[in-house]
Amino acid sequence: MKSFFSIVLLTFLLCGNSSAQPITPSDKPNKTQQLLIDRGYGMFIHFGVNTFTDQEWSDGKIPVGKYNPTKLDCDQWVRVARDAGFRYVLLTTKHHDGFCLWDSKFTDYDVASSPVKTDVVAEVSKACKKYGLKFAVYYSLWDRHEPLHNDPDPQKYVQYMMNQLTELLTNYGEVVELWLDGGWAKKQNDWDLDQLYTLVKKLQPNCAVGVNHTIVYEDGKRKFVIPDDMITDNKYYFQYFPGDFRLWDPKIAHLADKKQYLHNGQSYYMPFEHTICISKPWSWFQKSKPVPARSLDELEELFYWCTANQNALVIDIPAGPSGLIYEHEANTAIALAQRINIQKGKPLPKNGRFISMSKPATASSTDIQNEVLLDAKFAVDGGMQTRWAAKDTLAELVVELKPADKFNKISIFEYQDMRKGKNKDDEFSNYRTNRIEAYDIDIWKDNEWLNIYHDEASMDDCKVIRFPVFYQASKIRLKVLRATAPPSIWEFNIIDFSQR
Amino acid sequence: MKSFFSIVLLTFLLCGNSSAQPITPSDKPNKTQQLLIDRGYGMFIHFGVNTFTDQEWSDGKIPVGKYNPTKLDCDQWVRVARDAGFRYVLLTTKHHDGFCLWDSKFTDYDVASSPVKTDVVAEVSKACKKYGLKFAVYYSLWDRHEPLHNDPDPQKYVQYMMNQLTELLTNYGEVVELWLDGGWAKKQNDWDLDQLYTLVKKLQPNCAVGVNHTIVYEDGKRKFVIPDDMITDNKYYFQYFPGDFRLWDPKIAHLADKKQYLHNGQSYYMPFEHTICISKPWSWFQKSKPVPARSLDELEELFYWCTANQNALVIDIPAGPSGLIYEHEANTAIALAQRINIQKGKPLPKNGRFISMSKPATASSTDIQNEVLLDAKFAVDGGMQTRWAAKDTLAELVVELKPADKFNKISIFEYQDMRKGKNKDDEFSNYRTNRIEAYDIDIWKDNEWLNIYHDEASMDDCKVIRFPVFYQASKIRLKVLRATAPPSIWEFNIIDFSQR
Repeated sequence: MKSFFSIVLLTFLLCGNSSAQPITPSDKPNKTQQLLIDRGYGMFIHFGVNTFTDQEWSDGKIPVGKYNPTKLDCDQWVRVARDAGFRYVLLTTKHHDGFCLWDSKFTDYDVASSPVKTDVVAEVSKACKKYGLKFAVYYSLWDRHEPLHNDPDPQKYVQYMMNQLTELLTNYGEVVELWLDGGWAKKQNDWDLDQLYTLVKKLQPNCAVGVNHTIVYEDGKRKFVIPDDMITDNKYYFQYFPGDFRLWDPKIAHLADKKQYLHNGQSYYMPFEHTICISKPWSWFQKSKPVPARSLDELEELFYWCTANQNALVIDIPAGPSGLIYEHEANTAIALAQRINIQKGKPLPKNGRFISMSKPATASSTDIQNEVLLDAKFAVDGGMQTRWAAKDTLAELVVELKPADKFNKISIFEYQDMRKGKNKDDEFSNYRTNRIEAYDIDIWKDNEWLNIYHDEASMDDCKVIRFPVFYQASKIRLKVLRATAPPSIWEFNIIDFSQR
Repeated sequence: MKSFFSIVLLTFLLCGNSSAQPITPSDKPNKTQQLLIDRGYGMFIHFGVNTFTDQEWSDGKIPVGKYNPTKLDCDQWVRVARDAGFRYVLLTTKHHDGFCLWDSKFTDYDVASSPVKTDVVAEVSKACKKYGLKFAVYYSLWDRHEPLHNDPDPQKYVQYMMNQLTELLTNYGEVVELWLDGGWAKKQNDWDLDQLYTLVKKLQPNCAVGVNHTIVYEDGKRKFVIPDDMITDNKYYFQYFPGDFRLWDPKIAHLADKKQYLHNGQSYYMPFEHTICISKPWSWFQKSKPVPARSLDELEELFYWCTANQNALVIDIPAGPSGLIYEHEANTAIALAQRINIQKGKPLPKNGRFISMSKPATASSTDIQNEVLLDAKFAVDGGMQTRWAAKDTLAELVVELKPADKFNKISIFEYQDMRKGKNKDDEFSNYRTNRIEAYDIDIWKDNEWLNIYHDEASMDDCKVIRFPVFYQASKIRLKVLRATAPPSIWEFNIIDFSQR
């Protein structure tokens, strides 16, 4: 709600805080980053006007009256987060549409001007305190509603952001993270990140700041580095500086993810925060009709992968138009926490040792796409964005193992055919379908192949096979028996789950 | 191996054993039956000439030389049984084909005349002693190889069976169960069960005897009672008498299974032993190519169901032509034991309380087949052979619950379209496919339906939904969102898993 008494809140800046943690060149995490790494696992909540229109992005023109949750209960959101073992809650206080979930003095496009005036930021931050979770803020740089955003003088909109961030970072207690999005809408310098970052550190010294698509291949260019490529220290550059952690939703970092990135010739330590949706079709904002949740197998493997290696994970569990988180998604998140045994106050659980990592791999056939050989080795390279692809459906993948290494778990991330939901609910959701429908897992034992697993069901999004016994072998084979198209594998992980 | 010195082994009968446990009229288990009930969970092993021909039944004409396991290791079979929590091993010592897994003096159609002369009965019984399991014997009355079987004087073949059973029950230590099959091949009296039973009790006083298709609707007629109908005491009759337990493979008893059956006006207590295959397509004998195992969800629910109510369960895990149990099936059985926590020397674990049992049920539509209304009530009647069937694909089933009853688990046995494998591997295996492909589970809460589960994947053979929280409701609804044909449900169980 716009106030006639708008105060120039920048005056707050004069009250500096001596324990601020601005980023400095380093090869290890500073205190703010270490706190982020230690939290490790957060719940993302998308909520706003889009929730009421079955949309992912809207253009800032949805009438404020559309925002109308019938049973708004932010306490329920955070209870779910607590029960599901999350350590922090990250709330979309303002998405690209510019609608604010708090009563902002600087706009009327907010809850205070809507039919349900509850200050959602206040309620969520309050519930976080009540349940012992940390509170984090997502804020979109890009604003499709606020006219100042398009003012010829970019500082006008910077001032608008400074005012709003001041509200967010002074009125709601501790904020541990600020997630900035939509930077693509303007030239980097137009956001004046230096000024925003300084403000944040003044108001919330331990608040970690991240800007989506943080890192680029060439200094000054806008070609973002896919996280899978971030396996060399001091090779890539900040697009957005300063910042405390790397972002590129919804990409998955390499298992050998590196932490050193360059700005003005200096090297900075930067952990990565992963962002995934609990919904199977990547629905960030909740839909009026429920969509299926991801399988516990996939969530378990993504959890281990994304929280390993000094990185963090937020899982989006958006509230629906009723103002409640859907039971089936809440139950999935809680069941995941129970399955992998996340315990309050203890380090997050880890996956076992990947005994297949970077081992020699061969395949019965290998496809080439865009002049790149999709080699067997990519199935065991620790990267979720490189893959082995076969040329025929009845393909085989063989990985050499150290016979001394034992294993009792396998996880397989199969490449999936994907359709964006343009003809369906929205332009973001995607519908995935895997190809492998029957397969064997064999090990080389006493000079012949011994079958240890046989399935005639689809692999689904991620197949986890748990063995009640340990196996040792010099080779392991994935033998596809039936597939709807030549199969392809992102990652084929042979795991010793006793070495955690 | 036929011996020229065949001894008339019946002389053994003269050495009677005073602690024999023949069946007598009773309304409670005798010692032999109580031991069977307490064992509760056995591993069935089908092995024989069929194993080498990808057949389920053969006609007794397969040359004995076809029996040729390359790596026979009966110790491995029983290790698997031990690791999988089974309390006894039931071996097909002779199937309908007449081939004997031991060196029988009364036939040449046995292992001793084959390329691999190992006495499998001896090896298995020895391994059972080694690993602390009980040993049980399956023996087919029907014999398609032995000429005496078709002699005009039925006593000739009875004598043959007496001789062979004497071998089996004297040479291999304790035998806790004798499973007689194939009775349909002759008139009941031609088997002279009285004589066989008396012999068994003389040689193995605590050996429980069962004959497949034990119970009939009318005294003296051969129309077998399906186990689902056995819910009234003293209503049905023995077809085969005497005997200690009921059999009808592979049918599943009603949850309200009754135990009193009539013979000559007297009432006898008779527990039921269930018989299922670990393989998804009901493959009794192993095939040269592996077939998929059942899902752990289905096995868990069948385990609880079939071992409850003073009944027992044997699961068939047949050895393959190598002479080894397949790793993928062994692993499934072991994983089941770990999942439900079967512990040696402790009572078998139980399912929770079915709060939906016999509660009022209604459906959006109901089909009629063979002039029988497939009513909604059949989905909550505790019987796996009665079902609700809808007339349209987008059907709903609503069950009233007591609001005071809580639940945290649901299991759904969906009716499946089934194709016998006549055009595929053999005449027995069947291929099942379910119809429901997307569905909601909703509860009636605050005067509206609250969705608590949403899925867009096939229900598969048995769907188990575990909730990390307890729910209470006055009504629960299964709402089908997509199905390939009008859905039908055998059982829709709402379970309080804390009441076990």
